[in-house]
Amino acid sequence: MTNQQQQAASVDPVTRPLRVALLGCGVVGSEVVRLLNEQGRDLGARVGRPLELVGIAVRRLNRTRPGIDPALFTTDAEELVRREDVDLVVEVIGGIEPARSLILAAMEHGASVVTANKALLAEDGSTLFTAAEKAGVDLYFEAAVAGAIPIIRPLRESLVGDEITSVIGIVNGTTNFILDKMDIDGAGFAETLAEAQELGYAEADPTADIEGFDAAAKAAILSSLAFHSRVTGADVYREGITDVTSTDIASAREMGCVVKLLAICQLSEVDPAAPDAERTVSVRVHPAMIPRSHPLAGVGGAYNAVFVESRSAGRLMFYGPGAGGPPTASAVLGDLVTVARNRLRGAPGPGESSYARRTVSPIGDVVTRYHLSLEVADVAGVLATIALCFAEHEVSIQTVRQQGREGDAQLVIVTHRATDAALSATVEALRGLDVVQQVISVMRVEGE
Amino acid sequence: MTNQQQQAASVDPVTRPLRVALLGCGVVGSEVVRLLNEQGRDLGARVGRPLELVGIAVRRLNRTRPGIDPALFTTDAEELVRREDVDLVVEVIGGIEPARSLILAAMEHGASVVTANKALLAEDGSTLFTAAEKAGVDLYFEAAVAGAIPIIRPLRESLVGDEITSVIGIVNGTTNFILDKMDIDGAGFAETLAEAQELGYAEADPTADIEGFDAAAKAAILSSLAFHSRVTGADVYREGITDVTSTDIASAREMGCVVKLLAICQLSEVDPAAPDAERTVSVRVHPAMIPRSHPLAGVGGAYNAVFVESRSAGRLMFYGPGAGGPPTASAVLGDLVTVARNRLRGAPGPGESSYARRTVSPIGDVVTRYHLSLEVADVAGVLATIALCFAEHEVSIQTVRQQGREGDAQLVIVTHRATDAALSATVEALRGLDVVQQVISVMRVEGE
Repeated sequence: MTNQQQQAASVDPVTRPLRVALLGCGVVGSEVVRLLNEQGRDLGARVGRPLELVGIAVRRLNRTRPGIDPALFTTDAEELVRREDVDLVVEVIGGIEPARSLILAAMEHGASVVTANKALLAEDGSTLFTAAEKAGVDLYFEAAVAGAIPIIRPLRESLVGDEITSVIGIVNGTTNFILDKMDIDGAGFAETLAEAQELGYAEADPTADIEGFDAAAKAAILSSLAFHSRVTGADVYREGITDVTSTDIASAREMGCVVKLLAICQLSEVDPAAPDAERTVSVRVHPAMIPRSHPLAGVGGAYNAVFVESRSAGRLMFYGPGAGGPPTASAVLGDLVTVARNRLRGAPGPGESSYARRTVSPIGDVVTRYHLSLEVADVAGVLATIALCFAEHEVSIQTVRQQGREGDAQLVIVTHRATDAALSATVEALRGLDVVQQVISVMRVEGE
Repeated sequence: MTNQQQQAASVDPVTRPLRVALLGCGVVGSEVVRLLNEQGRDLGARVGRPLELVGIAVRRLNRTRPGIDPALFTTDAEELVRREDVDLVVEVIGGIEPARSLILAAMEHGASVVTANKALLAEDGSTLFTAAEKAGVDLYFEAAVAGAIPIIRPLRESLVGDEITSVIGIVNGTTNFILDKMDIDGAGFAETLAEAQELGYAEADPTADIEGFDAAAKAAILSSLAFHSRVTGADVYREGITDVTSTDIASAREMGCVVKLLAICQLSEVDPAAPDAERTVSVRVHPAMIPRSHPLAGVGGAYNAVFVESRSAGRLMFYGPGAGGPPTASAVLGDLVTVARNRLRGAPGPGESSYARRTVSPIGDVVTRYHLSLEVADVAGVLATIALCFAEHEVSIQTVRQQGREGDAQLVIVTHRATDAALSATVEALRGLDVVQQVISVMRVEGE
């Protein structure tokens, strides 16, 4: 028996502190420790019982971490999550393993878990939820999506009496910073990414952000909650922002739009011809043009926002800092206080709700509008040829703008609503036309 | 024993539906009934047990209410809330009595309560919370503030691990509609109010809205939650919008501001000279100028928004429709599903948190900036006289703009931060000066 276990055993279980184990002590973890120390009295008062940090699992012990009792550190995370005296486990390691095994072991040993791990929840959330249900413990994850912005509880609880029809989020601060900068400065993608890396807004390996993997994980989590169904990261259609050019952003500006990387989760509309048919959901992450008048258009810099539409509540928006140590720690501690309260009351909070079992429709079925730039031969009849190509694929053109240059010209076309499949077939056919020199860009137009 | 009681007694208590009683069947109540009917299957699936509406208390039976089973109506609310088979009571009558007595009776008889009653919560919330605690039942009230916008749960739970320093809300749709219209049309208050009444955005007796009583009740609720203290409507300093003129709005525009009726809840800063001194809160409702760049400035029409600042999470904003039948019903049903789930798990959700017991400071202690318009004699030395008056009261002037007219002139003064007491004393003294013909308007400047 360790000293701590002896101490635990000798204390009245009704008044003893609730014991917290922390997995990971990076940017978020160290902030969680700092706040537990500084605001411990308040947090205890809000729980109704003190919270006591009893261990911190780290990969290496030889880093100095000022202000934290060195005796708390251990490299044996396996042992920490299995300790009998641990009530609550906070996981801020990230990634799939060992995070998943540790969370499962913690729950099996009776601890409630708070995690910020979007990648794991998106890949294998159902395993975690099932284990939490079986163990009768909580699994909370407010920090996993949009940092400190309360969006998980609103979806899980506040809007649980409503029918959510659409969730559109700017949920990745790095890409929003880059696109916003490109819009303001007129600069290209590569130089803006380099600037973002210099300023600490993008990581040395920015793949997860700029290729949309991070946003896709969050889209999976948001759509699971919004539609009471299981959606994993693999279900999410994904395009990053690496192909967005300063020309795209200038084109958007000419249309009164901005380009944003959006996570879009939508419930299909009721088909009047088959009102009882099962409705499906579409979940996708890609850059899109949205009108500057849309509430999401004004979300600048590294901020995040989530725009929710529901049948009764109408249009709601949640806005705030999407990342960073203190905001993420705020979300983690909000969850920690909540699961601690649930523990004292002897009943966990809401678990997984996947009863609706909606299927995710393929990207080809998604209906939206498109903005296309084409380089075409500047000869008579070009527009007629191209218009015919759209018509043959049942994509209706809303506006065409022609910009002549010596020898060839540029056509900017905005379509009415069409399926992604129809649009893709149109683009394929356009590429085969003699009069089309190049399909310069294709971008979806959302939020109208 | 009534038929319904017999039926209840004969059904397995583990699988029987959770029984809901509704108090009030106006705009919100009838929408709640409609949604319970239309979306009952989904709501039941989310709860884990069907919800069954067993009675609706109304004042008069002789109104026709299409689509609702007439057998559900009763004028005996007292009997309804005492029925043994009622698990959940939804109160949407509004006002203090009989709502309070009915809620207390319902809780005493073991029912959890969902209410949209801001006036009652602001006047006597502690009585209700104490009764809920004693009975071991839930008291939920998401619909009481800002309609469908999830703000109660974020404050009670998501941000419970953080230190909230400020909550600034546009929480009254009627006044926001009027001020927004005045800004767009340049019209005066009286004619815009008349227009709002015609369009259904203002009631025949608009007092509660335009005098700020409604916003003050919401400010009391928000500050109680944000600061873990008891704050009642009577603690809230309150000014309505009836004195706001088109000239004020034009002045705001010249400063790059808009005029909004704000509910402002603030935690006092730590005094460096006395870091351990108890911090106080200020809670006030009044029209104020805010910069057009502030996220709240863009909240137009009858929309609501709540802007929260906290130590770790930073700046968050929650935006959406603040009133209306469907949005309010959405909030009510979200609460209903949550308290039903809590009931099945056998443990209520978070109760009152008032451990911090912060005191509400008087309006005189509030520190902010001010915009003043003065009509002054157009003679030499006027500005010096007036500047001296400000200096004598330790109010520092940031900008002065003089607009000459024949014989007399108008001075527009914007101050640096000063206490409300100092500003009031300055205004009093200005009124006594020979060179001041009239203090045309005084308005606070916030959000900078």
